[in-house]
Amino acid sequence: MPHPSHHVVILGGGFGGLHAAHDLRRAPVRVTLLDRRNFHLFQPLLYQVATGTLSPSNIAAPLRDVLRRQKNVTVLLAEATAIDAGNRRVILSDGSMAYDSLIVATGATHHYFGHPEWEKLAPALKTIEDATEIRRRLLLAFEAAERETDPARMHAWLTFILVGGGPTGVELAGALAEIARDTLRHDFRTINPRDAHIILVEGLARILSVYPDILSAKAQAKLAKLGVDVWTNSMVTDIQRESVTIRRGDKTEVVASRTVLWAAGVQASPLGEALAKATGVALDRAGRVIVLPDCSVPGFPNLFVIGDLANFSHQGGKPLPGVAQTAMQQGAYVARLIERRLRGKGMPPFRYKDLGNMATIGRNCAVVDLGWIRFGGFFAWLIWLFVHLMSLVQFHSRVLVLFQWGWNYVTHNRSSRLITGPSPLPLPGRAEAGVERSDG
Amino acid sequence: MPHPSHHVVILGGGFGGLHAAHDLRRAPVRVTLLDRRNFHLFQPLLYQVATGTLSPSNIAAPLRDVLRRQKNVTVLLAEATAIDAGNRRVILSDGSMAYDSLIVATGATHHYFGHPEWEKLAPALKTIEDATEIRRRLLLAFEAAERETDPARMHAWLTFILVGGGPTGVELAGALAEIARDTLRHDFRTINPRDAHIILVEGLARILSVYPDILSAKAQAKLAKLGVDVWTNSMVTDIQRESVTIRRGDKTEVVASRTVLWAAGVQASPLGEALAKATGVALDRAGRVIVLPDCSVPGFPNLFVIGDLANFSHQGGKPLPGVAQTAMQQGAYVARLIERRLRGKGMPPFRYKDLGNMATIGRNCAVVDLGWIRFGGFFAWLIWLFVHLMSLVQFHSRVLVLFQWGWNYVTHNRSSRLITGPSPLPLPGRAEAGVERSDG
Repeated sequence: MPHPSHHVVILGGGFGGLHAAHDLRRAPVRVTLLDRRNFHLFQPLLYQVATGTLSPSNIAAPLRDVLRRQKNVTVLLAEATAIDAGNRRVILSDGSMAYDSLIVATGATHHYFGHPEWEKLAPALKTIEDATEIRRRLLLAFEAAERETDPARMHAWLTFILVGGGPTGVELAGALAEIARDTLRHDFRTINPRDAHIILVEGLARILSVYPDILSAKAQAKLAKLGVDVWTNSMVTDIQRESVTIRRGDKTEVVASRTVLWAAGVQASPLGEALAKATGVALDRAGRVIVLPDCSVPGFPNLFVIGDLANFSHQGGKPLPGVAQTAMQQGAYVARLIERRLRGKGMPPFRYKDLGNMATIGRNCAVVDLGWIRFGGFFAWLIWLFVHLMSLVQFHSRVLVLFQWGWNYVTHNRSSRLITGPSPLPLPGRAEAGVERSDG
Repeated sequence: MPHPSHHVVILGGGFGGLHAAHDLRRAPVRVTLLDRRNFHLFQPLLYQVATGTLSPSNIAAPLRDVLRRQKNVTVLLAEATAIDAGNRRVILSDGSMAYDSLIVATGATHHYFGHPEWEKLAPALKTIEDATEIRRRLLLAFEAAERETDPARMHAWLTFILVGGGPTGVELAGALAEIARDTLRHDFRTINPRDAHIILVEGLARILSVYPDILSAKAQAKLAKLGVDVWTNSMVTDIQRESVTIRRGDKTEVVASRTVLWAAGVQASPLGEALAKATGVALDRAGRVIVLPDCSVPGFPNLFVIGDLANFSHQGGKPLPGVAQTAMQQGAYVARLIERRLRGKGMPPFRYKDLGNMATIGRNCAVVDLGWIRFGGFFAWLIWLFVHLMSLVQFHSRVLVLFQWGWNYVTHNRSSRLITGPSPLPLPGRAEAGVERSDG
C-alpha cells in the first residue's frame, strides 16, 4: 500500500523541477514546488528578449498557471538557503519545511572566472531582468552614439563585445548583427547602425566547441557573413567602463567598447555548497553536486539533485551537458523512481538520451546536430523554430511567439525595443561632449 | 518663401508631442523630438499591464520606429531641465539645443496631496515601471497570503485599497476584481482568491465625477456586482506599511491592508516651473502652464505648451480635461499654426472638440459618454475595445493585443502574471510566522 502522505519537495521550477512535478501527477504523494520566482522561464529563447524580438511574458509561464489543475501540487514562493538532510528539512529564508523526498533543481548561473567585479560591466543572460538590462544596454548604445559628436567615442558606443562562443553567445551575436543591419536601418539620422562592430570572443579554437567541427565552421562562416568578428583562441583579461583587454594568441589588444555581454562560464547554484555542507557530497570545480547513477546524493537515497546543479558522470565518463534536455529527463526519471519506490519497486540507473543540439545564427540559418545527422542552413533553422515553438509550455505563448516571429521575419522589425529601468540620462560621457550637434 | 531651416524642437513623445511631430511632416521645418524614454506609451491601457493582461511592449512603440520614415524628424534620447526662452535654447541634462519654435509636451504625473512619503507605499500608475511594480505587488500579495498562517495577516494581504475613483481607479478595481474572482480561481491551495477585499476610495460624492450622473451610477453598480466596495466621500488620511486610515464622512476607519495603489491627483511636469521661471508665465495650482488661446506662452509666440502640462481655459472657462484627445488635438493645432505662420498666414484660436469619454469596468461592461448619447454595458464595452484597439500606434500591436484580449476573454486567463524586479524574499512578515503550515 503506498504511503498517501509522502511529501515530495522540489526546489526550483525550471525544466527539471517542473518536469518532476508534472510526472508525479498520478503518484500517491503530496508535492510542494518552491521557487524564488513565480514563473517558469524558457531560457533557450531568453536571448530573443534581450534583443527585442519577444516580450518577457512570451517566454515566462506562471508556475501556478501551469500546474493549476494538478491538485497534488502546491506552489509556494520561497527561497531555500540550506538543507538539514539528517532531519529531512529544507531551511528557507523565511521558515522551514519537512520533506520525505527532496529534489534539488536550482540550476546554475554564469561565472566570471575569478573576476566578480566584471559582472556589473558585462551582464550575463540568465534571468528576465538580465534580458531587459541587456536590451537596455544594447539600445542605449545606439542612442548614445546618435548623440555623440566625437568619432572615436561614437565608435566605442557602436562596438559590442560578446564573451563566450557557446550557443548563447552565437545567438546573441547573430541577433545583434541583424539589429544593426536591418532593424535599425531607417531609425537614425547621424549614425549608420551598420557601422556597428560586433566581436565574439571565444577561448577555445572554435565556437560551439561541443558541436562537431563542421557545424562550428558553418556557424562561423555565417557569423562572418553577418559582419561579426569571431576571435577564437582569445581571452578577455580586463574589462573597464570604456574598454576591454583581450589576449589573442600571443598579442594583447585593448578595444574601446561601451557594451560587453557575458556568455561564458558555469557556476552552480549556491545550494550545491549547502548540500555539500549538509551531506558531505563532493562538488566539482563548477560547484556542481556529483550524484550517484540514480541522481541521488551518496548516503541520502531520498535526496536528488538534477539538471544544471548536478554533475552526472556515469555515462561516457564526462558530465552530461547543462542543457534543458538533461534536466527534463532527470526530472522525469526521479519522479518515476519515487513513484516506483513507494510501490516497493526499483529502477535501473538514469540514462541520458541525447536528442541533439542546435543553435540559430540570425535569420534563415541554424546548425543542428542530431547525432546521426548534422546540417546547417535554412532547413536547420526551420527545425530550430519548430522545436522551440513546440517546447513553449503554454499554447497561448506559442501563438504569440509564432505571430511575432512571422511579423519580424516579414518586416525585419523587432517591436520590443524598449529601454526600461532606471533613467539612463544624462547619457554617460555626454557632459564633456558640449553643445549639441543638431544645434543649427 | 518658407524658411527651410526653421527648427522645431518638441519636448515629450506622448500623445501631444507625437501628433505635433507627425503633423509637421510636410512643413518646411526640421523637427527634433526629445524624450527621456525611447518609446511612446499608450497610457490608456497601462492598467492592463499592471493587471497582467498585456505586456509592456504591447502598449509601447519605439519613437524611432514610429517616425522612421519621416525624414524631417530627428529623435533624440534627452531630458530637458530648463528653457532659456530669451535665447531660444533648451537646456538639457547633458547639453543644450537651439530652437526656432518650441513645443513643450512633457505631461503630468500623480500628486500625493502634500504626502510625498506615500509614494513608496502606494505607487501610482504613470510609467511602464509603475505598471510592472504594481503587477508585482498585486501578485505578491496573493503569494504572501498563500504562505500566511495567521488569519488576520492573511486578510490584510488580501485587502486592496485603490485611491481615486477616476477612470484609472475604476479600471484597476474592475480588473483586480476579475483577477480575484476568475483568473486565480484554481491557482491556490490554502487561500481562496475570491476572499479578496477591494476598496475603491473616492473623495467626491460619486466615482467618475467628470461623467454624467447616470454613468457614475452604472459604473458603481457594476463594481458592486464584481464585489468591489466603493467608498465615496472618503479621504485617505494616513498610509502605513500594514494599514490605511480613511475618513468616511465623519468617522475614521483604519483598514489593515498591505497593498495600496494611488490613482488620484494631478501634478504637472517640473518643466512647468522651469517655464514660469524663464517666461514669467502663470501656473495653476497643479503646476500647469496657463496658455493663450493659441497654446503659446504670453510674450513668447514661438513657445507652445500642450497636453497635460497646459491649462487651456479659453473654452467654457474650465481647463480642458487632461486626456489624450486634448493633447492630440493641441499637437495637431500647433503643428498647423507653425506651418501657416511660415507661409505668412494666421490661425484662429484652438478649439477643443470633445469626442467623448469612456471607461471600462471589467469584462463585458463599460460606460461611454459621447455628449449626444450616453450608455453603459456590453455594447459600450465593444466600443471601448474597438476605439482603444484602433488607437494603438502600430498595426503589429493591434494584432497582438486583439489576440490577447480574445484569449483572456475565452479562458479568463491573464498570461503576463510575472513578478519581476528585486527579489521579494523573504516575504515581509514571514519571519515571525514560524514554521510552514504545509509542514507535514
